[in-house]
Amino acid sequence: MRPNDIIETKKEGGKLKADEIDFLINGYTNGDIPDYQLSAWAMAVYFQGMDKEETAMLTKTMAESGETIDLSKIKGTKVDKHSTGGVGDTTTLILAPLVAACGAPVAKMSGRGLGHTGGTIDKLEAIPGFKTSLSTEKFINSVNQIGAAVAGQTGNLAPADKKLYALRDVTATVDSIPLIASSIMSKKIASGADGIVLDVKTGDGAFMKTYDGALELAETMVEIGEEVGRDVIAVVSDMNQPLGKAVGNSLEVKEAIDTLKGEGPEDLTNLCITLAAQMLQLSNVVETKEEAINKATTALNNGAALNKLKEMIANQGGNSEVVDDYQLLPQGENKLEIKAQQSGYVQKIKAKDVGLSAMLLGAGRATKEDEIDLAVGIELTKKVGDEVTAGSTLATLIYDSEEDLEEAKDKLNSAYQIGKEAPEENPLIYDVVK
Amino acid sequence: MRPNDIIETKKEGGKLKADEIDFLINGYTNGDIPDYQLSAWAMAVYFQGMDKEETAMLTKTMAESGETIDLSKIKGTKVDKHSTGGVGDTTTLILAPLVAACGAPVAKMSGRGLGHTGGTIDKLEAIPGFKTSLSTEKFINSVNQIGAAVAGQTGNLAPADKKLYALRDVTATVDSIPLIASSIMSKKIASGADGIVLDVKTGDGAFMKTYDGALELAETMVEIGEEVGRDVIAVVSDMNQPLGKAVGNSLEVKEAIDTLKGEGPEDLTNLCITLAAQMLQLSNVVETKEEAINKATTALNNGAALNKLKEMIANQGGNSEVVDDYQLLPQGENKLEIKAQQSGYVQKIKAKDVGLSAMLLGAGRATKEDEIDLAVGIELTKKVGDEVTAGSTLATLIYDSEEDLEEAKDKLNSAYQIGKEAPEENPLIYDVVK
Repeated sequence: MRPNDIIETKKEGGKLKADEIDFLINGYTNGDIPDYQLSAWAMAVYFQGMDKEETAMLTKTMAESGETIDLSKIKGTKVDKHSTGGVGDTTTLILAPLVAACGAPVAKMSGRGLGHTGGTIDKLEAIPGFKTSLSTEKFINSVNQIGAAVAGQTGNLAPADKKLYALRDVTATVDSIPLIASSIMSKKIASGADGIVLDVKTGDGAFMKTYDGALELAETMVEIGEEVGRDVIAVVSDMNQPLGKAVGNSLEVKEAIDTLKGEGPEDLTNLCITLAAQMLQLSNVVETKEEAINKATTALNNGAALNKLKEMIANQGGNSEVVDDYQLLPQGENKLEIKAQQSGYVQKIKAKDVGLSAMLLGAGRATKEDEIDLAVGIELTKKVGDEVTAGSTLATLIYDSEEDLEEAKDKLNSAYQIGKEAPEENPLIYDVVK
Repeated sequence: MRPNDIIETKKEGGKLKADEIDFLINGYTNGDIPDYQLSAWAMAVYFQGMDKEETAMLTKTMAESGETIDLSKIKGTKVDKHSTGGVGDTTTLILAPLVAACGAPVAKMSGRGLGHTGGTIDKLEAIPGFKTSLSTEKFINSVNQIGAAVAGQTGNLAPADKKLYALRDVTATVDSIPLIASSIMSKKIASGADGIVLDVKTGDGAFMKTYDGALELAETMVEIGEEVGRDVIAVVSDMNQPLGKAVGNSLEVKEAIDTLKGEGPEDLTNLCITLAAQMLQLSNVVETKEEAINKATTALNNGAALNKLKEMIANQGGNSEVVDDYQLLPQGENKLEIKAQQSGYVQKIKAKDVGLSAMLLGAGRATKEDEIDLAVGIELTKKVGDEVTAGSTLATLIYDSEEDLEEAKDKLNSAYQIGKEAPEENPLIYDVVK
């Protein structure tokens, strides 16, 4: 078997066999096959695609390329959740305690933020004392004891994906749906959950800009689940404006707690109930969709989910008083309000620009090595469809340093588009693929 | 400027600017840009193509990436000739003295053979004493003194092409017409000739299997010539069977001499007259096509071309008596005749299999490091259209070692296809593009 022939087959639009994919990916991972052959192959995949079986085989090979986590010691059907990444996407902080409060075990591994999108691990670290680095034993025990744990990825999960993604990132081969789908799913499968709920974002703040692309990605990942024997549901949700009203680590923690108190923004609350209901169904703790929605709504309203968050924080070494006293969270020193320059309705809030503005304030990383400021970020006063009058506050920047403040302000200003007519609103949930 | 963005532009079907091509190719040549980015780019070019201007810019950048040969000290319009590679393609050995005998200076740099196709430099080395490695000064003086010199490529010509070709060879990105065209033309341009006649082979023994592909390659190379200011003519000729009757180094030298005596195979003779006529026209030593053909035919018939070959051999240190005494050439020890297994007509002689058979005997190289045996090869008794009777000789293997003899015999046997009806013959010359 020669890498060149495998590339040629894909280039000509042929279908790769399991042993060819294994040979290519394992050879690349262990250094036998050079990166210049993998990048040519990835470009051929970009143009010729891969079918359901090929994509599943690639996913499986990458999932098995390193450690895999054995969650069998956790009782019940473990359900994981993954978002393709958005701005102000605080859902994991809400879903973990919410779903656990409804009786389904949540064993969630999360990542850090990069670029204009945030990461759950960074957000959790805004809670004083909260430890995101857990041993596998502690992680499993936590889920068995209190029903939920959220930790940073440990161990050498899917190293093939890590290596291939880094290569795709510098060879213009990121935007291939089978490659994106197998990348996401290989890590999820190696993480050991029985069921996976995917939140596929679409819109200008998302990785998938178009609805068609997001739907295809969602369908591809559900198909991978079928092929490899995991239950997968994908929700396609809107990212044409930031989710909720807070962007930035401690600001999003506060918003998550508000939501668990039943006082959160409507869009964030609704998306969390939708995702929680899917997770509960996959976990088999409910029988119908209606029961799932009722159960999740009740847990939000009666304080059960909020109490579960307190337990979770305490269990991972954090100060659970934060739930009642937001002053315990890192506080930004200064505020700057962005005012509307004309009257009308908010037509659009370019989510990516809001994310970049927050990044400029220090809430996110431009490169993996950057340190972040957990206190800073953006509070959106107005969202799409809101009426505004000239001079009224659209959003507030919370900042510590003035270094990139002007640029952050300009970015946020340009993110808001005001028009005379009330805009047609995008739906929050476009589709549920299963 | 980032390589990733340039790859992205090409991937999306955009047109690259001159400075982008320069940045990419020069960065790659000097090691600043890694091979994994170039291979991804080459695959994007395979799918999206390049237009006339881009292809010419790439050619120019590669031609200028190393030394360029200055032939200005040679009087007259220097014309070069290049074949895309065939089996039994002895034309250069005939054309150089033939065209020189007609008054046009021939300064020809040639290469060695690889795989199933032979190389002019190997063939010339079958002539005892013949030196193919000449200094630039000696090369130029030879052309000025006797009108012709054929030498191995010296110096660091088009290193960008050398590096990129080696990369394409292992990343399934060889068969892209703009990349093939720019590769050939960059070396020809760096070699310094004013005019270039290209012999683009088509058929199963050629690099371009289909006529459409060969025509597109021919047109692309003529367009590059227009863009960079060199006169280029491309002849599209048949390689659905070997050219002439000899395959192997000293056997082809003998056949070339026969042809210069007016006793060569019809196809080889006709192709040489066609190519010589084009070279004479480019060199401006004739006014019309008819004059060119007459001049070339006369030089073959009156011994002028043969005498020029003698001069050329003597000038490059070889024993010119070889022209009259073929025993001075390396002689294979053994012969094995391949017999027809049925009566009928030769329908096809798969040129590639004949070339591979000769390679197995030792006439060619499987890898660049292989040593070759100048004495061995194949003599074709029957060619396409010939009538044969069962048991009569189709071809003869001339060999020294029995090591791969069986395999060589099988290859040659399977190359011949015999059928009941006389086949429709392919034309020798399909097109002349200028």
